[in-house]
Amino acid sequence: MVKAGIVGGTGYTGVELLRLLAAHPQVALQVITSRSEAGMPVADMFPNLRGKVDLCFSEPSVDELSHCDVVFFATPHGVAMKSAGELLDNGVKVIDLGADFRIKDIPEWEKWYGMQHTSHELVAEAVYGLPEVNREAIKQARLIACPGCYPTAVQLGFMPLLEQKLVDVKHLIADAKSGVSGAGRKANVGTLLCEASESMKAYAVPGHRHLPEIQQGLVQMANAQVGLTFVPHLTPMIRGIHATLYARLTSDVDLQSLYEQRYESETFVDVMPAGSHPETRSVKGANQCRIAIHRPQDGNTVVILSVIDNLVKGAAGQAVQSMNILFALDENTGLETIALLP
Amino acid sequence: MVKAGIVGGTGYTGVELLRLLAAHPQVALQVITSRSEAGMPVADMFPNLRGKVDLCFSEPSVDELSHCDVVFFATPHGVAMKSAGELLDNGVKVIDLGADFRIKDIPEWEKWYGMQHTSHELVAEAVYGLPEVNREAIKQARLIACPGCYPTAVQLGFMPLLEQKLVDVKHLIADAKSGVSGAGRKANVGTLLCEASESMKAYAVPGHRHLPEIQQGLVQMANAQVGLTFVPHLTPMIRGIHATLYARLTSDVDLQSLYEQRYESETFVDVMPAGSHPETRSVKGANQCRIAIHRPQDGNTVVILSVIDNLVKGAAGQAVQSMNILFALDENTGLETIALLP
Amino acid sequence: MVKAGIVGGTGYTGVELLRLLAAHPQVALQVITSRSEAGMPVADMFPNLRGKVDLCFSEPSVDELSHCDVVFFATPHGVAMKSAGELLDNGVKVIDLGADFRIKDIPEWEKWYGMQHTSHELVAEAVYGLPEVNREAIKQARLIACPGCYPTAVQLGFMPLLEQKLVDVKHLIADAKSGVSGAGRKANVGTLLCEASESMKAYAVPGHRHLPEIQQGLVQMANAQVGLTFVPHLTPMIRGIHATLYARLTSDVDLQSLYEQRYESETFVDVMPAGSHPETRSVKGANQCRIAIHRPQDGNTVVILSVIDNLVKGAAGQAVQSMNILFALDENTGLETIALLP
Amino acid sequence: MVKAGIVGGTGYTGVELLRLLAAHPQVALQVITSRSEAGMPVADMFPNLRGKVDLCFSEPSVDELSHCDVVFFATPHGVAMKSAGELLDNGVKVIDLGADFRIKDIPEWEKWYGMQHTSHELVAEAVYGLPEVNREAIKQARLIACPGCYPTAVQLGFMPLLEQKLVDVKHLIADAKSGVSGAGRKANVGTLLCEASESMKAYAVPGHRHLPEIQQGLVQMANAQVGLTFVPHLTPMIRGIHATLYARLTSDVDLQSLYEQRYESETFVDVMPAGSHPETRSVKGANQCRIAIHRPQDGNTVVILSVIDNLVKGAAGQAVQSMNILFALDENTGLETIALLP
Repeated sequence: MVKAGIVGGTGYTGVELLRLLAAHPQVALQVITSRSEAGMPVADMFPNLRGKVDLCFSEPSVDELSHCDVVFFATPHGVAMKSAGELLDNGVKVIDLGADFRIKDIPEWEKWYGMQHTSHELVAEAVYGLPEVNREAIKQARLIACPGCYPTAVQLGFMPLLEQKLVDVKHLIADAKSGVSGAGRKANVGTLLCEASESMKAYAVPGHRHLPEIQQGLVQMANAQVGLTFVPHLTPMIRGIHATLYARLTSDVDLQSLYEQRYESETFVDVMPAGSHPETRSVKGANQCRIAIHRPQDGNTVVILSVIDNLVKGAAGQAVQSMNILFALDENTGLETIALLP
Repeated sequence: MVKAGIVGGTGYTGVELLRLLAAHPQVALQVITSRSEAGMPVADMFPNLRGKVDLCFSEPSVDELSHCDVVFFATPHGVAMKSAGELLDNGVKVIDLGADFRIKDIPEWEKWYGMQHTSHELVAEAVYGLPEVNREAIKQARLIACPGCYPTAVQLGFMPLLEQKLVDVKHLIADAKSGVSGAGRKANVGTLLCEASESMKAYAVPGHRHLPEIQQGLVQMANAQVGLTFVPHLTPMIRGIHATLYARLTSDVDLQSLYEQRYESETFVDVMPAGSHPETRSVKGANQCRIAIHRPQDGNTVVILSVIDNLVKGAAGQAVQSMNILFALDENTGLETIALLP
Repeated sequence: MVKAGIVGGTGYTGVELLRLLAAHPQVALQVITSRSEAGMPVADMFPNLRGKVDLCFSEPSVDELSHCDVVFFATPHGVAMKSAGELLDNGVKVIDLGADFRIKDIPEWEKWYGMQHTSHELVAEAVYGLPEVNREAIKQARLIACPGCYPTAVQLGFMPLLEQKLVDVKHLIADAKSGVSGAGRKANVGTLLCEASESMKAYAVPGHRHLPEIQQGLVQMANAQVGLTFVPHLTPMIRGIHATLYARLTSDVDLQSLYEQRYESETFVDVMPAGSHPETRSVKGANQCRIAIHRPQDGNTVVILSVIDNLVKGAAGQAVQSMNILFALDENTGLETIALLP
Repeated sequence: MVKAGIVGGTGYTGVELLRLLAAHPQVALQVITSRSEAGMPVADMFPNLRGKVDLCFSEPSVDELSHCDVVFFATPHGVAMKSAGELLDNGVKVIDLGADFRIKDIPEWEKWYGMQHTSHELVAEAVYGLPEVNREAIKQARLIACPGCYPTAVQLGFMPLLEQKLVDVKHLIADAKSGVSGAGRKANVGTLLCEASESMKAYAVPGHRHLPEIQQGLVQMANAQVGLTFVPHLTPMIRGIHATLYARLTSDVDLQSLYEQRYESETFVDVMPAGSHPETRSVKGANQCRIAIHRPQDGNTVVILSVIDNLVKGAAGQAVQSMNILFALDENTGLETIALLP
């Protein structure tokens, strides 16, 4: 059994991690910390966990966390970079669901996140936890930086095109739509039901923090400079990301076969039949990315549709997937849940 | 392994049964029938099942169904009563999620369902599949009539009060609110998103088919005639039933203890701490009923709050629970899913 | 033209007042105050008002407000009681949409609202602004206390029964369902889209602040002591209240006629045909209460269904209705908007 | 007073027309037809109209309709082309909210709509009812073809760029998100609340009927061939379209000023301040298009955000706007409703 701890379990990625880890047959959940809620039973905050998780939130403590084999950080950026080092020194593996170790270019990170980074060497060491790209590196990692939700949907969608150099990489467009849970479980007027339901809007069009992360990934895939216009939208639903990706083809190949081959052995990426339109609800609660490829009117613009559950394949599920790889478990252990539909 | 078949799998209870049975470690799904969709892969209709269920819908066939140990009927009323007999004769256990065998009083059934009943003897034989009431009888049954969704929430909510004769049973009130999935997966203007979202309404106030079923159950619990006013409401959400129950106390006991004791050994009924307000989302996707007891202003009106997921504890989950009992499996096998929150 | 001001316009009743008053042909909107947002154009906060309302929020100032003929308070309780007196002294009419002057029994008010009341004499003077009850008094009033949203739906629903002494008034039940906008426009985890959508729950079952207000009104109608069990529920929609009312009949009359006659001359109360089930969306954005009367199975329990838009007939619309009466305008001036459906 | 009739009033554009025309101070609503519902009071189908519209649906009759000054067709495609001619011959103006007269290229129309067109000469005569483009022609028209909902949002968004030849018109992208009311009020599994809520999907990516209509408009603006990739999405809300438009700049101008000048005198097009993100709810129920212009990272890709209410500026409101122009009324008569927020 893998002994697991969670730092910062009061948000939506936290409760999702709890849901997955509580049901994981090879994990023993040891500790979950929250400075603000120390002492409160986890199931008082998240009543779905009543009878399933008996833990109380506790004060963060390196000593206690060091008894774990792995510690997940489900914290706002700036937290993990302060505490991860000590845990690693104590032999604990660290999987960060936050943004601290995702971007290799530290000045770029500091520009977008508005704070100084205090762990340059850990950024260098961290493995970007997108198993479909970095499975081998994840096996050897001590520290894993889980991708953001948008970056997961967008990178998996573009990857085969970029790896095969089939599109004009200078003018990629990612129009992405996210459910409101992506904004987290914070008291905030903008994500009240009365503000965010029955409406649709774009946000952060001038620049979103996931842009440099996506670009870094695309550059690596394309092995070239990449130009990306990324427009996120807030959609009136709880879970789900739908990324609609546009690129201009520079050569002519069978895209359907290309995608099917690229993801043939990937359990968690489903290339749908030609002509499909994936729905976000088809992955609700499941660690799955579903992708469809279109070439409208046989023109030279390819349209990729890529859907995930932002809290699962976009966060907690992907973190567990990386944990499974790290501890040499079957990659889909504890991740076989079927999406909840309707 | 229990070999299972499903008759009529194109509705919401059908896809929910598929979700549960596909993940059930002791079940081998053999066949799923649908006259209208014969030949279509199940996963084409329900994309959440892609990669999880490989079956195609097939024409209903007694021969094929007779290779199963158990057959679930997820059909409109009037279907199971025609086919169940032959399957039972072939030694197959039958679990009906529809209404055909729920009501013992056949003229009453015919009045509410508007058709002749053609299997009187099977009505007499059928066991009402509410395990918290009929566990012993379920163990021996050949034919199980699963309770309706409202009847499950209302009966579990009232039961301890009626068994102990603590309330005026002539004037019970059940004000129930259901998500729209209770209306099924039929093309119907009234349940379009544009008609049913952003609105609340009562319906069937003059009389709903679940009324005689609930009354039958309450009479049995109270061992007395029962007067019930039952008002169902359509609520703008997919899943969930919230039953708010009102009764006038005729004697004074510690209701919290009463409920806790009554349900002490029931895995799927959670009596919440005094003062709680259960949310339907706390049981979304889970085979769970959560109950809270209130006595506002210490008056003589008791208010019971009872929530379930109409598709799980109110339908498919409860059917699987009965199947587990019937086949002497651990009652919670395949039913340990944690509710999806948020 | 009636010169109108609004104190505290940053909440949902505030923006709804703005919507109604901006379109009111006899009103000139003069000033809207908000301490926290002073200087901000109203239309920056509420983009629906772009091009319709040019005002900026300003610091509350008795001087400035005193140039108005009428001032609306759309503030949390405790604010209006401090400022109303001075405005009244300056000859300004005051219409309070908050709770400060609703309850005549001051100790009762102080118990439920948790603060000392500082304007006892104004409580005595205030007219409870339910025009269907108090139209004559409103005409003469200086200070109007607008009813709460639940109290409006519940009182209009019960009124004919109580006035005619047709039911057991000791055991009334009001099971009420509200949209989330009733909770206001405050940063609050509980009303985030991810917490409040796709779920239903009761709240404040032990006691809600609207209970004493409703009881006060019912006592007046019945001219007798009244026992009421009031259970509010949070419903996953923005606007709307659906009150389902239960009472035991003590005599036998034609209820449909009774209601039709009682509300014959009331523009804003619509008694629907026998057998109807009003939907909250049928009053969305409109100053309307729709009522239907049922007597299920011809028993002695009457079921009244009463729906309003909590922000209109339950708040801002009703306030404008009172203003119209107060200034001898046609009662439906500016209130003829048709509900938005779908 | 303009005497108005409606053919086919049982859908969402029909009820929206009724809402607008019933409140229009210069319109007398004479007749509304529906073959299937003849005899039913309109307010029985649409309870928001109770007390506001007393008409019953009647059998379509050219005689009766010929007493009107103007007849609106709110019918599926294929209906108006059969009846419009006779009405025009009788001196009635016709405003078609359907698709029959939108596309000038008849073989193209027949390809996308899958039927033969039977009124070629009326196609030639019809004026495309986008007032911001064709105001002068509308004044003189006998027959107006109202634009589709997507075409309205997309054309108004792109127009200034194309008129000024500022972008590469060969590679335009319109990623559009629509509320479910765009799919109409038809019994249909795909738009049930349980199918369409809590999910997002693209649809018709290989080709949507609004594509040739949009292209025709863009070609006219650009006075050049145009390449457009158009991807519509179904969004879990009732009303609203959010079009996110992408184009590559070929010259460098102050886009904000360009748009502000182009729409300076347009009442129903609101160019928001630089940096804005319009929300669809800001136009809910209002005849308004709000537009914001972005140029992320100062690159050469311009991003235009354009929102409308699909049933108002995208259908019924725009039709009334054209009617106002046609009958020399103030263009915003009856169209000054403020959007309903929240």
